[in-house]
Amino acid sequence: MDLEARAHAEHPEALRLWLRLLTCTQMVERDLRNRLREAFDTTLPRFDLMAQLERVPEGLRMNELSRRLMVTGGNVTGITDQLEAEGLVERVPVEGDRRAFHVRLTPAGRQQFQAMAQAHEQWIVDAFAGLTSAEIRTLHQLLGRVKQHFLETT
Amino acid sequence: MDLEARAHAEHPEALRLWLRLLTCTQMVERDLRNRLREAFDTTLPRFDLMAQLERVPEGLRMNELSRRLMVTGGNVTGITDQLEAEGLVERVPVEGDRRAFHVRLTPAGRQQFQAMAQAHEQWIVDAFAGLTSAEIRTLHQLLGRVKQHFLETT
Repeated sequence: MDLEARAHAEHPEALRLWLRLLTCTQMVERDLRNRLREAFDTTLPRFDLMAQLERVPEGLRMNELSRRLMVTGGNVTGITDQLEAEGLVERVPVEGDRRAFHVRLTPAGRQQFQAMAQAHEQWIVDAFAGLTSAEIRTLHQLLGRVKQHFLETT
Repeated sequence: MDLEARAHAEHPEALRLWLRLLTCTQMVERDLRNRLREAFDTTLPRFDLMAQLERVPEGLRMNELSRRLMVTGGNVTGITDQLEAEGLVERVPVEGDRRAFHVRLTPAGRQQFQAMAQAHEQWIVDAFAGLTSAEIRTLHQLLGRVKQHFLETT
C-alpha cells in the first residue's frame, strides 16, 4: 500500500501524477536513508549539511547554511555540534567580525564526504537504471517545465 | 537557491534527475502546506489522515491507520486526539473485541474533508498546468517505470 492507492479512478490525471511523483520521491529517499545508515552510519540531514559545506571550502555562516538546507536553525546547530564532536567539521572565526564564525569541513570530513558522495551517486544511478538515457533526459526536461511553470505562477 | 544548485556539471544525468525530482516534489508539497494552512487552517498530516479515513467509512484501527500513513504511532495518536477534540473524527468500539476501537470520520469531518479535497485537487491541477495532457501521461508513465524498477530491485 503506497500513496498512489489514494488516487481514485475519477480523479484527474494531474492528481494521479502528483501521487506517483510523491511515491517515487519517498521511495528513493527512504532507500537513500537506509543505505546511508547501513554503509556509513549516518543520516540524510548530516549528508546534506556536509554536501553544502563541500562546495564552499572557506565555510559558511550558520544562517547561510540553514537557509541552504531549508531546515530550522535548531536542527542545523544540533547536527553541526555532532559533526564537530566527531572531528568532521570545525567552527572558525570570521576575519573582521569578532562575533561571527564559519562552519567548514575538516580534512577528515572532506575525505569522509567524498566516500559518501561517490556511493550516493551510484545509488542514484541504480535507482534510475530502469530508464534509458533518452528517457532520463525526457523526464528531466518535463520536470523542468513543471518547475518553470511553478516559479512563474507562485 | 534550491537543491538543484548542488548538481555539479560532472555528475551523471541520473543525479541531476533525482535533484530535480526532489525539488519539484518539495516545491509542490510546500505550496500545498501553505494553501491548506491559509484556506483551511489545517496541516498536511491532518489532511492525509482524514484522506485515509474518508476511504473507509467503518473506520480503521490505529495501527492500520499508522501503517497507511507511514508515520510514527505517536504522531497519529496526537493528530487523532486533536481531530477528535474538534469533532472531526470519533473513536468507536470494535464489535467482538472489547479492547479495540476504530477511528472514523464524523459527518462534520466528512463534510470538511470533502471541501478540502476539492480545493486540493484544484491546486494539484494548477501545479501541473504547464504541461499538456500528453506530457502528463508521459511523465506518469516514465515515473511508473522508475517505481517498477525500484520494486523489482529492492
